[in-house]
Amino acid sequence: MNLKPFATIGLMLALACIETYGQDKVACWDRLELSFKHEAQGNPFDVPLEATFTCKGTRINVEGFYDGEDTYRVRFMPTKAGTWRYTLSSPAKELDGKTGTFEAVPATGSNHGMVETDGEHAFRYADGTRYYPFGTTSYAWLHMSKEVQEETLQTLAQTGFNKIRMCVFPKSYNLVKEEPALYPFEIKGITKDKKGNEVKVWDYERFNPAYFQHLETCIGRLGQLGMEVDLILFHPYDKGRWGFDAMPEETNIRYIHYLVNRLGAFRNVWWSMANEWDYVKAKTVDDWKTLARAVVQADPYRHLCSIHGSTATYFDYGMPEFTHVSVQDEAPVFTPSAAALLRQIFHKPVICDEVGYEGNLASRWGRLNPQQMLFYITNGLMGGIYVMHGECYQEGNDPIFWAQGGKLKGESWKRIGFLRQLLEAMPNPLQMADINRDLKTSTAGDGYYFVYLGKEITDYWRFNLPAKNASYGKLGAGRKFKVDVINLWDMTVETCPTVFETGKAADYRVEDVKQRGVRLPCAPYLLLRVTEVQTAG
Amino acid sequence: MNLKPFATIGLMLALACIETYGQDKVACWDRLELSFKHEAQGNPFDVPLEATFTCKGTRINVEGFYDGEDTYRVRFMPTKAGTWRYTLSSPAKELDGKTGTFEAVPATGSNHGMVETDGEHAFRYADGTRYYPFGTTSYAWLHMSKEVQEETLQTLAQTGFNKIRMCVFPKSYNLVKEEPALYPFEIKGITKDKKGNEVKVWDYERFNPAYFQHLETCIGRLGQLGMEVDLILFHPYDKGRWGFDAMPEETNIRYIHYLVNRLGAFRNVWWSMANEWDYVKAKTVDDWKTLARAVVQADPYRHLCSIHGSTATYFDYGMPEFTHVSVQDEAPVFTPSAAALLRQIFHKPVICDEVGYEGNLASRWGRLNPQQMLFYITNGLMGGIYVMHGECYQEGNDPIFWAQGGKLKGESWKRIGFLRQLLEAMPNPLQMADINRDLKTSTAGDGYYFVYLGKEITDYWRFNLPAKNASYGKLGAGRKFKVDVINLWDMTVETCPTVFETGKAADYRVEDVKQRGVRLPCAPYLLLRVTEVQTAG
Repeated sequence: MNLKPFATIGLMLALACIETYGQDKVACWDRLELSFKHEAQGNPFDVPLEATFTCKGTRINVEGFYDGEDTYRVRFMPTKAGTWRYTLSSPAKELDGKTGTFEAVPATGSNHGMVETDGEHAFRYADGTRYYPFGTTSYAWLHMSKEVQEETLQTLAQTGFNKIRMCVFPKSYNLVKEEPALYPFEIKGITKDKKGNEVKVWDYERFNPAYFQHLETCIGRLGQLGMEVDLILFHPYDKGRWGFDAMPEETNIRYIHYLVNRLGAFRNVWWSMANEWDYVKAKTVDDWKTLARAVVQADPYRHLCSIHGSTATYFDYGMPEFTHVSVQDEAPVFTPSAAALLRQIFHKPVICDEVGYEGNLASRWGRLNPQQMLFYITNGLMGGIYVMHGECYQEGNDPIFWAQGGKLKGESWKRIGFLRQLLEAMPNPLQMADINRDLKTSTAGDGYYFVYLGKEITDYWRFNLPAKNASYGKLGAGRKFKVDVINLWDMTVETCPTVFETGKAADYRVEDVKQRGVRLPCAPYLLLRVTEVQTAG
Repeated sequence: MNLKPFATIGLMLALACIETYGQDKVACWDRLELSFKHEAQGNPFDVPLEATFTCKGTRINVEGFYDGEDTYRVRFMPTKAGTWRYTLSSPAKELDGKTGTFEAVPATGSNHGMVETDGEHAFRYADGTRYYPFGTTSYAWLHMSKEVQEETLQTLAQTGFNKIRMCVFPKSYNLVKEEPALYPFEIKGITKDKKGNEVKVWDYERFNPAYFQHLETCIGRLGQLGMEVDLILFHPYDKGRWGFDAMPEETNIRYIHYLVNRLGAFRNVWWSMANEWDYVKAKTVDDWKTLARAVVQADPYRHLCSIHGSTATYFDYGMPEFTHVSVQDEAPVFTPSAAALLRQIFHKPVICDEVGYEGNLASRWGRLNPQQMLFYITNGLMGGIYVMHGECYQEGNDPIFWAQGGKLKGESWKRIGFLRQLLEAMPNPLQMADINRDLKTSTAGDGYYFVYLGKEITDYWRFNLPAKNASYGKLGAGRKFKVDVINLWDMTVETCPTVFETGKAADYRVEDVKQRGVRLPCAPYLLLRVTEVQTAG
């Protein structure tokens, strides 16, 4: 019984005959799951099931789904604390009219809610905590052997990543040939293609709940690791092997609804309509727009949503369905100013989800050296966008992390946690302080700068900052600063003992009153953190 | 009488009583001008006057305008050869029902028609001839003294420019204080502002035809020089001096209609909604959208149309009203790959209408050195966008070209014609051959490349090209090439005597079968033109 000790008499009476369908207490942004038994006549996936949740003026409608074994579920993620009441409606009598309540309690610990955009160029959790995406990619790790799956999760647990990009459907590619243990649809039969290979014929009317249960387990475990899941709904790496890249339009929509109904209540899910959308030959630009609209219409929570193309291929990211820009492109990360260019064009956050992978492949997209990977990530951050990691080391028959998971073998991933800490300590997201004029200095607010020297190797930095400080107040005289010399590769921070004092701006620049500077190690990838020193009075 | 010798009897009868209103023969894309007398009751600018032109299934409606002294005019630009028939309609009896015909003959000589986009990333004239914009800016030259105006036109005649950016309204700025000889509206009275300065009170209901006649003379003379006029409808450089940046919405629309009705038939006019739109404090983003729609709705020919913001400020260029992107931004021209980034994002041509000006001003936007100006222009071209020149040398009381016109005093403008010839000789517009991977090589088609060395100073270039050639076929073995070493600063072309022959592609690159190369002068700004040699058989 989901009665609570302090429920009113009236409520007690109303609920007296109600069975327990789910938990009676759920933290905000956690998941309530209700389950119901119903033996369907005909296709159980065709039974409509809706639920309305209300709490103090908020009303959210969600759809339930069939999860096999005569079980229907409704999942719900409470968006605020309080008593939520729900009512089911369905043409199926056993499901219709069920009501209940549960208590949403405030989130605690590492639960900061869903990640959202901040309305400008960055992200934050629903509770206001900043979220700076540091992600990697492992497209099909969840379709590998159980051992590799476990190894992947153990690997991720040791990293500083807070985002992973992965596919719902299995992947067939040059270096990825594994057959998944489970399939998303029931098999109707087996046929042969022109070459005589066996091809499964799917019953697109009937999903395989076990496939999606496994996906959910993976998403749940990633959530426990603090990772957002940038879930790829469609991709081109199939080409007749399973046919999931070329399903009928009706099936695509049906699949989207089933997926969103199952996963909408997972707070760490993002929708990525596609990986390399333009390589999916069976879909047009208009198809992608239709599918994106279908996702957003089905999702009452408005999870982050974008679409990813092949190298330097930009979709119409102005579409309101897309909360952010997700691209594969190196050009924006060659320099901070190129990154800033993207930030200026799109009035949404920008994620470079692919700028090449650290690795040793023969293909040039998979052979960045680790320093270059980190350099690209840092350039993007300085320009005010976000750049994801990826790794492709091919060693014998070991899984390659980029698609199969397993172990990370490279070097750049080890610096991610360090970089993330630097960002999370900032008062505001980064942007160029004096766009197009100072190509090295980014600002995180009044009195908080990063100067990135990149590949420049020098033994001295004369203290100097732009007078312009983005939309913050101009930098003037009499301000005191300290400088931390950060070696991003070695992950060291050394604070220069000098306290600098700004003079008056001259010709757009501000220097130290005594023209002092900082002695530097002759090393690349130095980041200078220049922050105001609070002085008494 | 506009009767033609071979007119049919019927037509002769129909036209027997018709007076001559305009020319009876006009080349395509030239201008027919009809004029009519009518003494208006009330405000003569309020008399509606429409004309319908038809020719072999084509029907174009234009509006006439009042041009002072009881004269109404209708201007029309025939878009195809043939006999055009027109009919006027107006509530004013003297104007209503007038009909006539004229003969549009094929364009000849330098008349290639209006400039349009090619539906992708570049421009062409209406007759299909390629148009590569090479422009400069002189915002208010037409509001300077007659001597300066003449000097400006003489200066432009000596350059390779084919585009100029200029304002309809006069400009008030730090370095530009001249009062124009004419005003766009009649003066209703004089008042004083808070500081006691005289401020004119405009009669926004009554335009000053002389002002617009002068504008037309200027546009016509620029047209004779082969120059497209990127006409700026609004700008922020006013701030209470005349008030044209803050007119009532109704006046803005009225002004747009009057301007488009007068100028629509000038084939060399482009509409630029604004210069630095975001600095115009009296207008919101939505206001700009409304005004852009008003321009496009009023313009039956669909002249090129865009809007220009302050540094690195991007409007929503996806709007269908905008035929191309017009921006002020240096970031895209720092490298060809940054330029290419803009090309990839916008599915329209991109013009950087301001990347700083060559000059000697104290302000950093006006102190590029000439090599840097040319470097920026070249970087943009290599990446597949178009970058405009500008010049700001302040010498005594001489006019400064960027706003006042007069003489060009710099060095970069002298290279524009040379650069333009290089482009006009290409088979197709440029784009990066192997985007993000080869940062120096642009392609103009199969067997036609430019390799830009920029600031690199080297004595040798080993022949090598990317195997990938944008969307053209891949480069393979057995192709023969010659290399022209072009010094963009010195404007010299030297052809290397070696005929190179490509070997098989290896690791994405193609070299000469004998690994030969080209000896280079140790000079910056070298452009290598690598073109296929046609061999017999």
